[in-house]
Amino acid sequence: MKIAVLPGDGIGPEIIAQAQRVLEVLRSDGLPIEMEQAPLGGAGYDEFGHPYPSFTQNLCRDADAVLLGAVGGPAYDNLDRPLRPERGLLAIRKDLNLFANLRPAILYPELANASTLKPEVVSGLDIMIVRELTGDIYFGQPRGIAVNELGEREAYNTMRYSEGEIRRIAHVAFGIAMKRGKKLCSVDKANVLETTEFWKEIMIDVAREYPQVELSHMYVDNAAMQLVRNPKQFDVMVTGNIFGDILSDEASMLTGSIGMLPSASLDQNNKGLYEPSHGSAPDIAGKDLANPLATILSAAMMLRYTFNQEAAAQRVESAVKTVLAQGYRTADIFEAGCEKVSCSGMGDAVVAAL
Amino acid sequence: MKIAVLPGDGIGPEIIAQAQRVLEVLRSDGLPIEMEQAPLGGAGYDEFGHPYPSFTQNLCRDADAVLLGAVGGPAYDNLDRPLRPERGLLAIRKDLNLFANLRPAILYPELANASTLKPEVVSGLDIMIVRELTGDIYFGQPRGIAVNELGEREAYNTMRYSEGEIRRIAHVAFGIAMKRGKKLCSVDKANVLETTEFWKEIMIDVAREYPQVELSHMYVDNAAMQLVRNPKQFDVMVTGNIFGDILSDEASMLTGSIGMLPSASLDQNNKGLYEPSHGSAPDIAGKDLANPLATILSAAMMLRYTFNQEAAAQRVESAVKTVLAQGYRTADIFEAGCEKVSCSGMGDAVVAAL
Ligand SMILES: CC(C)[C@H](C(=O)O)[C@@H](O)C(=O)O
Ligand SMILES: CC(C)[C@H](C(=O)O)[C@@H](O)C(=O)O
Repeated sequence: MKIAVLPGDGIGPEIIAQAQRVLEVLRSDGLPIEMEQAPLGGAGYDEFGHPYPSFTQNLCRDADAVLLGAVGGPAYDNLDRPLRPERGLLAIRKDLNLFANLRPAILYPELANASTLKPEVVSGLDIMIVRELTGDIYFGQPRGIAVNELGEREAYNTMRYSEGEIRRIAHVAFGIAMKRGKKLCSVDKANVLETTEFWKEIMIDVAREYPQVELSHMYVDNAAMQLVRNPKQFDVMVTGNIFGDILSDEASMLTGSIGMLPSASLDQNNKGLYEPSHGSAPDIAGKDLANPLATILSAAMMLRYTFNQEAAAQRVESAVKTVLAQGYRTADIFEAGCEKVSCSGMGDAVVAAL
Repeated sequence: MKIAVLPGDGIGPEIIAQAQRVLEVLRSDGLPIEMEQAPLGGAGYDEFGHPYPSFTQNLCRDADAVLLGAVGGPAYDNLDRPLRPERGLLAIRKDLNLFANLRPAILYPELANASTLKPEVVSGLDIMIVRELTGDIYFGQPRGIAVNELGEREAYNTMRYSEGEIRRIAHVAFGIAMKRGKKLCSVDKANVLETTEFWKEIMIDVAREYPQVELSHMYVDNAAMQLVRNPKQFDVMVTGNIFGDILSDEASMLTGSIGMLPSASLDQNNKGLYEPSHGSAPDIAGKDLANPLATILSAAMMLRYTFNQEAAAQRVESAVKTVLAQGYRTADIFEAGCEKVSCSGMGDAVVAAL
């Protein structure tokens, strides 16, 4: 079980440290976990002059899974485009062929008050968003800024999906729907964009292999509304890279506690990169204030999806539920009557609860 | 004051009829309003075989403003792409050069309970979203479905913005910000897409002409989150066609009463198309159940933006506030203790309150 650990920038190193403590407990209990660190994002730039240095690339290619903190921060805002931290993230996704991004939006009953939505609208919320991660307008060619025939500057990007790219993400989404509530909503803008009309056509075709799953289709603008109006109507959602970026962030914010939400990005063989859904939070970096639970839960996803260690995954997830039930809260999810803890204090609590 | 009236499909004719009654009161009080009807969308297809027939096109080109109900419905779902109702909407926007779409998201105090968000998060909400409407991936070439070099089918669309297109929408947005809270948030995905990096660059350049307006920038995924987390942080938002489609629908749903929200789509000379933010609601079409207030408020926007009749616009808006205060509610916004009225019943109430 070779894990490449990429702390990244901002609060990355702090939250990663707590997830590593959890994995070390599992190792001392017998799981053959090996961890090695490498820099990504701004840290990669600082150490090797590149956001995805070849040192990191080699480590990640060799590993079975990658555990990532977060990348980016104001120190890197003025770098040229190819050197910016988020380029490291896009590069590692593409390099490792991590086309299936799984982003759960779950409301923990103990944290129900954190949501800006009324309790009855979000209680019990449990959505899984499946976002395609290596295609679409993120990577489509041609792209750039140029002078057009009229002598005016214009910029362009290309949304693009091949049949194979859509098929493979469809199979991942239907597979997940089969293990859950058997409802899959595919999000598109088929009334305007040929790319997503094609997406919809392929989804319908793949659906024939999963007769038990109820497939529905929704326009992306309507999906953005329905997530606010009645999010509990959704079980699994599947969509392209850019719509998935927007909708998964909206969905995770419905829970009010994005500091709790993990994510997995998988390739064809369940090799995966695991990272919290939140960002590098430069404003609180280095202050031992961050919430490490999303990263710890990302490690649990890794145990489940890459290493097939369901029992170990559940052990970590139960420990997280226990510390919430015990009342431990980092600043982002704190409310009166609870016990405020630091990032490392939360790590202590989870390790104790394991 | 020549107005082309396009009832469209579904509930369109019903809600338009009530807005026309309001305009007729203003005419009988002296405003030189002329109205003529033409079909758009499915209705255009039924009558002339095209969603934007030349009969409609001629009327709209001649008019000073267009008042539209809504287009689309299940009867037209199996038509070929160029004949679908929404093609009529895209065609009229492009034909009349209606590049500036203004979509307010306002919470009416009387309807505070309709929101799925907690009262303290949305009370007093008043956001104006300025969406670019005739460029971006909606209209960019090349687009289509083709077989690639590997013999595989793939589909593609092009996101594209020229400098001039961005400048003109920037001026509209800054102009509106000047008349409101002087805060403008430009939404992009500049960390990934060159098109929106260019968008951001031009926004910053135009900002120099509006030193009183505080310009900020936000990534679209973060904007989708912030609208849920703390929507009252926003005054005016400006963004491209596709992001604007998604975010303006999300924002309008925050109010819980999309049946109340109007929209305006303007050209360079304040000629405009005015329509409710909601759709054609085929499920309740023909039942006299729809909420006509968004359409009536769209007529008020028309009086303000195209005809410069601020007093008449306010008169209509006050009448709407009065009927809400009097407790009249259509089914979509009904709550206990109020008086449920039909679509035409709501029209009666507004006419009486004028
Ligand atoms: C940092 C950025 C490039 C990235 C994305 O847009 O994919 C992020 O928003 C995410 O969702 O992981
Ligand atoms: C019907 C559709 C083409 C349209 C759009 O996407 O622009 C609608 O969603 C809107 O926002 O007016």
